[in-house]
Amino acid sequence: MKKIVIFGVGLIGGSFALALKKAGVETQFVGVGRRLATLERAKELGIIDVASSSVAEALVDADLVLIAAPVAQTGAILASIAPHLQSGTIVTDAGSTKSDVVAAARAALGAKIAQFVPGHPIAGRELNGPDAAIADLYVGKKVVLAPLAENAPEDVERVAAAWRACGAIIHQLTPEKHDGVFAAVSHLPHLLAYALVDDLAKKPHADLLFEYAASGFRDFTRIAGSSPEMWRDISIANQSALLAELDSYLLQLTSMRTALAQGDGAALEAVYANAQRARLNWQQRIESAEKQNKEGGD
Amino acid sequence: MKKIVIFGVGLIGGSFALALKKAGVETQFVGVGRRLATLERAKELGIIDVASSSVAEALVDADLVLIAAPVAQTGAILASIAPHLQSGTIVTDAGSTKSDVVAAARAALGAKIAQFVPGHPIAGRELNGPDAAIADLYVGKKVVLAPLAENAPEDVERVAAAWRACGAIIHQLTPEKHDGVFAAVSHLPHLLAYALVDDLAKKPHADLLFEYAASGFRDFTRIAGSSPEMWRDISIANQSALLAELDSYLLQLTSMRTALAQGDGAALEAVYANAQRARLNWQQRIESAEKQNKEGGD
Repeated sequence: MKKIVIFGVGLIGGSFALALKKAGVETQFVGVGRRLATLERAKELGIIDVASSSVAEALVDADLVLIAAPVAQTGAILASIAPHLQSGTIVTDAGSTKSDVVAAARAALGAKIAQFVPGHPIAGRELNGPDAAIADLYVGKKVVLAPLAENAPEDVERVAAAWRACGAIIHQLTPEKHDGVFAAVSHLPHLLAYALVDDLAKKPHADLLFEYAASGFRDFTRIAGSSPEMWRDISIANQSALLAELDSYLLQLTSMRTALAQGDGAALEAVYANAQRARLNWQQRIESAEKQNKEGGD
Repeated sequence: MKKIVIFGVGLIGGSFALALKKAGVETQFVGVGRRLATLERAKELGIIDVASSSVAEALVDADLVLIAAPVAQTGAILASIAPHLQSGTIVTDAGSTKSDVVAAARAALGAKIAQFVPGHPIAGRELNGPDAAIADLYVGKKVVLAPLAENAPEDVERVAAAWRACGAIIHQLTPEKHDGVFAAVSHLPHLLAYALVDDLAKKPHADLLFEYAASGFRDFTRIAGSSPEMWRDISIANQSALLAELDSYLLQLTSMRTALAQGDGAALEAVYANAQRARLNWQQRIESAEKQNKEGGD
């Protein structure tokens, strides 16, 4: 590879560059972004070699483009890329939703859609920006690729190989399946945690409530400390899948409300016990997978 | 003090005894419980000095009785205590709900109700039983006392002093206020976490969902790993306060569902941003309080 272009040199894009450099991938890293100070900082930190304010220049002879900017900007970035996209360049992204990104890519890239391979690295930290970027962010983490029917297998493999070089494990899902899965295990929990904290904070005795909140509350609501703008964008971008999961959860809560109102301890216990069992199984599978990854890496 | 009697020598009762011993309180610790093996183990571990299977014998000349058995047993334990309760003995408990315990105490103790000072230590570990008991479980933790109008101030102080000797910080709430607060910050989050895991586990593609659940899901659902029997009892014991909080939360979710269905990102962001702000403030208050506690203790 000669050139990798990264739109958004923060935590996700910056860590991608640092990981590839650490893996010994010899290529030029070009950063593109709206804020010059961020690009300069990324250069200082050794994340990128060149800070570019021209999409046209940046894209000349690029092998791979990663879009790692806030997901709401993806459409505009793809539109700015389209006229300068050479036939040998593959574009991928790191957005948390995929159906909307695919729709935006089809609209922006038109006949060049085969050059876009949608992706989603499942990794993060509570920090943002280039200073938060670390070379081992993706080690042992999943990256979901959601290839299109138009993608050539070797182009999908080029993206997969880059993420594998970062230490990630490649999974594949269709965009629709991806969005359904993450609506359930990520987007809905965020919405529920925000909902609880806001609900308590609006009550007249909120101060008294928060005074007695302890470690269970802290863990349950940790994700309510996430960026409101980012999660607004994700919620709207994944509207229909999130709505389906929320409706399923509302049905579940309504049936538990009935059990509670009737003093039906057995019905509540059945839900609690099934949940405890499922969570324990999940945790054991996670732990054994982590152990295998570690052993494989030694 | 000459004698402290503990019903239930597991994590909560056992840690109370170990903490008082560490603080140099010279008294005889008598354990009472349904399972002889547990009592013998507590004796081996130095938690109690005497294992008793006779409530009548155990209560002779007792200064303080702590009921730290599962909350559903509290009524039966109070009834077994009542006929043997001498006038100089104070009884307290460690139950997670208070209104129902007070009602059970009034029914069981009758004219001796003034000798019962309701309590709730806000501390725990993910382990149970005497082997989980540790001397510093209560250091810097809150203990909420919910005194009755009938309690003499010096009796409330006797209970408070024992918990203070364990390193705890004493708070006071009425039983009703206590139950309202913990319904909101503890009981409802438990119900919501159980609800989500069970909802996902029941879906036909549950395995696929759990495969992509990550650290946000792990923290959000950690409390769904708690004992189903214990949380069934707490839910039913605190039925009316929990129902009120659940209804408030259902209203909140229903209004967020409307915003989502309408694609109203601004309305969702307002909830998310208010929640993020409230949680950040809470976390800062917690951290500054912990710092003060540490400085005070040095």
